[in-house]
Amino acid sequence: MRWWGWGEAHHAGAAPHRAAALLEATLGVQRIERGPVSLDEVALPPSGLDADRRRALAAIVGEEGVRDDHRSRVVHAAGKGYPDLVRLRAGRPEGAPDAILYPDSHEQVQALLHACADARVAVVPWGGGTSVVGGVAPLPGGMDAVVALDLRRLGRLLALDPVSELATVQAGMRGPALEAELGARGFTLGHFPQSFEFVSIGGCVATRSAGQASTGYGRIDELVLGLRAATPAGEVSLPAFPASAAGPDLRELLVGSEGALGVLTEVCLRVRPRPARRHYEGMFFRSFAEGVEALRVSAQHDALPRVARLSDEAETRVSLELAGQGSLRARAGRAYLRARGYGGGCLAILGWEGEPEDVSRRRGTGLALLREHGGLQAGSSPGRQWERTRFEAPYLRDWLLDRGVLVETLETATRWSRLDGLHRAVGAALHETLGARGTPAVVMCHVSHLYETGASLYFTFLARQEPGAEIDQWQAAKSAATEAILEHGGTLTHHHAVGRDHARWLGAEVGPLGLAALRAVKRELDPQGIMNPGKLLAG
Amino acid sequence: MRWWGWGEAHHAGAAPHRAAALLEATLGVQRIERGPVSLDEVALPPSGLDADRRRALAAIVGEEGVRDDHRSRVVHAAGKGYPDLVRLRAGRPEGAPDAILYPDSHEQVQALLHACADARVAVVPWGGGTSVVGGVAPLPGGMDAVVALDLRRLGRLLALDPVSELATVQAGMRGPALEAELGARGFTLGHFPQSFEFVSIGGCVATRSAGQASTGYGRIDELVLGLRAATPAGEVSLPAFPASAAGPDLRELLVGSEGALGVLTEVCLRVRPRPARRHYEGMFFRSFAEGVEALRVSAQHDALPRVARLSDEAETRVSLELAGQGSLRARAGRAYLRARGYGGGCLAILGWEGEPEDVSRRRGTGLALLREHGGLQAGSSPGRQWERTRFEAPYLRDWLLDRGVLVETLETATRWSRLDGLHRAVGAALHETLGARGTPAVVMCHVSHLYETGASLYFTFLARQEPGAEIDQWQAAKSAATEAILEHGGTLTHHHAVGRDHARWLGAEVGPLGLAALRAVKRELDPQGIMNPGKLLAG
Repeated sequence: MRWWGWGEAHHAGAAPHRAAALLEATLGVQRIERGPVSLDEVALPPSGLDADRRRALAAIVGEEGVRDDHRSRVVHAAGKGYPDLVRLRAGRPEGAPDAILYPDSHEQVQALLHACADARVAVVPWGGGTSVVGGVAPLPGGMDAVVALDLRRLGRLLALDPVSELATVQAGMRGPALEAELGARGFTLGHFPQSFEFVSIGGCVATRSAGQASTGYGRIDELVLGLRAATPAGEVSLPAFPASAAGPDLRELLVGSEGALGVLTEVCLRVRPRPARRHYEGMFFRSFAEGVEALRVSAQHDALPRVARLSDEAETRVSLELAGQGSLRARAGRAYLRARGYGGGCLAILGWEGEPEDVSRRRGTGLALLREHGGLQAGSSPGRQWERTRFEAPYLRDWLLDRGVLVETLETATRWSRLDGLHRAVGAALHETLGARGTPAVVMCHVSHLYETGASLYFTFLARQEPGAEIDQWQAAKSAATEAILEHGGTLTHHHAVGRDHARWLGAEVGPLGLAALRAVKRELDPQGIMNPGKLLAG
Repeated sequence: MRWWGWGEAHHAGAAPHRAAALLEATLGVQRIERGPVSLDEVALPPSGLDADRRRALAAIVGEEGVRDDHRSRVVHAAGKGYPDLVRLRAGRPEGAPDAILYPDSHEQVQALLHACADARVAVVPWGGGTSVVGGVAPLPGGMDAVVALDLRRLGRLLALDPVSELATVQAGMRGPALEAELGARGFTLGHFPQSFEFVSIGGCVATRSAGQASTGYGRIDELVLGLRAATPAGEVSLPAFPASAAGPDLRELLVGSEGALGVLTEVCLRVRPRPARRHYEGMFFRSFAEGVEALRVSAQHDALPRVARLSDEAETRVSLELAGQGSLRARAGRAYLRARGYGGGCLAILGWEGEPEDVSRRRGTGLALLREHGGLQAGSSPGRQWERTRFEAPYLRDWLLDRGVLVETLETATRWSRLDGLHRAVGAALHETLGARGTPAVVMCHVSHLYETGASLYFTFLARQEPGAEIDQWQAAKSAATEAILEHGGTLTHHHAVGRDHARWLGAEVGPLGLAALRAVKRELDPQGIMNPGKLLAG
């Protein structure tokens, strides 16, 4: 992974053809490129891990299991949030781990945590390093040093129970590796966050991630049946059951614990047969409100596809522009939409997956219901286009950063009856805040995940960067949007997790006593407070 | 509710016609009736609540909100487990609350908890009083007195959001009252535990209950989106979201907390449109193994009815006998089954519910798949029979107790690949344990709830009581069955909760550190330890 952005060096993160012109037209951004500094120019403090501590840790993982070279420290200096990338590209990360540790078993993780607790060393569990909320910031939190605990060596599929459709997976296993192994045996996890190419399964579980197909397969928290974790106080092992009434569900305390209680080392996940057929297609609605209503009815009639997303008017407009509105075919398509009354409308992407028979039955019923509620079928071309680019947004972000554009995403979920108010409020908050700073915003939104009782909203916003005040500008926008979310009945985050960026608002969501209960668990499992300081419970 | 058994006085809990003869034939039970003692004969210690404490509590709920008369104390002296009823019928409950408190608002509950914490008074939250695992035993746990906190006055539907399909309900509302109010507005919760006629919604949530239709509607823990609780440390309020990634899910700590952390006062629940059509029917399989396999395939193909249960050979035999095997029609039916190779087979009950079109489509697909896997349709008569008697088992238990029969149920859940081993092991453990005591058992079982990854098993066992050693006999059987469950990969309980009866095994399921984490939460929310002592975390 590039230390200053997304993807591997050989992947050309090419922006859509018309993006530069569009940027200039909408945000007044000039075509000036400002790339990252070189790796050597990144300023890091010297490693603060003294020889005794280093020796104690190397005694557990071996000399090759401890790294503190410049490149390794820079790679682990931050996640992939907007402020992370702004700082890294400028060669000024806030800090870096004093060392990176590479355990290769649960037992090594456990021993490292005991050693770190003894030695007052803070531990940042590290999976794919893709957090966009500061979840892997190398904060020592009052300890004498901080290490990143990189789990890439815990990368195996430990067991597959094909009868029960359960897979036991080491936490450091990457999404694509797991899909490849499951796929070879006829199964899929069905979990495809935008960061899929780089995520670790443990990281997904620790952050309650949702994937693009989670409307059909369920969020990761719905897929976890059992888990094993190492904590500074020892092991927590929770067996996999389809359901249980044996008291409070401790799984739900470890799931979403973001490394602040311990390190997930194994998870037992529900898997599904690999779909034999995939059919992705587009559908237009006359307005976002009409589309939302159609999706609500579908969700409440169990008639949804496995992937369902609906862009609002602004996002639809931009994606059509980027898809090359100028072509003859595109112009003909637009004329058709206008003629049918869908001219300024909204595009939904629907993805049906499963056995061919199930797909055709389910699609038949689902489309009929959506058409009844105003949907106009738009063929498979928008679906194919979306599939092709489904993991591309983080690459595009690098391209935008090169051009001095503030680009950030944020997401929430709320009940259906509050969705419209929340959508408007967040848009207004972003427009107002960024407009007042002289950097007017483009704000786009889509419904990304559907539930019977509500849905998630995923916002993307762009504005010209304020040179020298990039972080302040971002923070102002982020704060305004978050306040609007909380005020209008949304959750702080639907699938990005709390991390550092949201920590100060967690109390507003769960209340002071809720926070106190979580802190009590932390004191029990992490009495010295070494686990991922400054995140989750730091607010 | 009868203080010594189930149901209200006017309900005649008549046993099936042939039950007495069957009992005599299988268990050697004589037709001697031994009813409960009279209410006056029940021995209680005098109320230990002194005048000062009583005054302090009455100051909060009013004089009419405090009761300590004999009848009220006896009614709140125990739940409805087998040992509870054995002791009550003999007039020798283990104890009784010193008083019963009847708050009528969240604020009164909160004030009572503060007052009880100050005054060293233990609190047993009381919903419907239907616990079968000792969950409402009036144990003082080292406090100076113990009160039952009866929530019947918190009995209102507070809000219905028909667009989002969410209902906000006070915790003391009874199942039938909620269904009536929701039904009048076109909705249902779809939660029908066997205790439905008497349960409180808060009690269901606090014990993670499952209902007979939970395969279709989801367990209560899947229906809770938000909640409000009073704890000795103050209020915990968790808003309702369709999903969230904001850290560990605190809802899942309060759900299933069994009154040991605080008192649930309001819950926000997902509701569904009331089904316009219900179709219940029977299906035979040649063996339990064949039926389990058919249900597994259906569960993993999303082809299940909303109610699905499959009796094993023993349970099928008994229920056919009780249904009146002697009749001409029944004999003809048996001959047909034998001729088709289903003679010693297993009966499944399938319940389809929803809009007529959905029912007929879903039933068509579902039945085809089940037939493909060996199912033989048995018409709607077994379905109607099951519907008629679906809440009758607890009445029948009283009839059995009158006749000196040990009758108990226990339940678990496990993954599909372990179901057969678990089924055999629990049966063997019960037969062996009770046989060795000279009281051979009848053990019956059904699959009661289905999941993609596994299912629950619900066991019923009967034996002649050992006069004078009824509790020892029960405990020996319960312990043997529980050890077998844990050893064969089952959860301690699928929907009966932990209570007092399972508490000593909770550590075996969640591990010592899991238990420590829960105790840390308890110390935070209930620092004086007044909440429902002796249950859940007492092991």
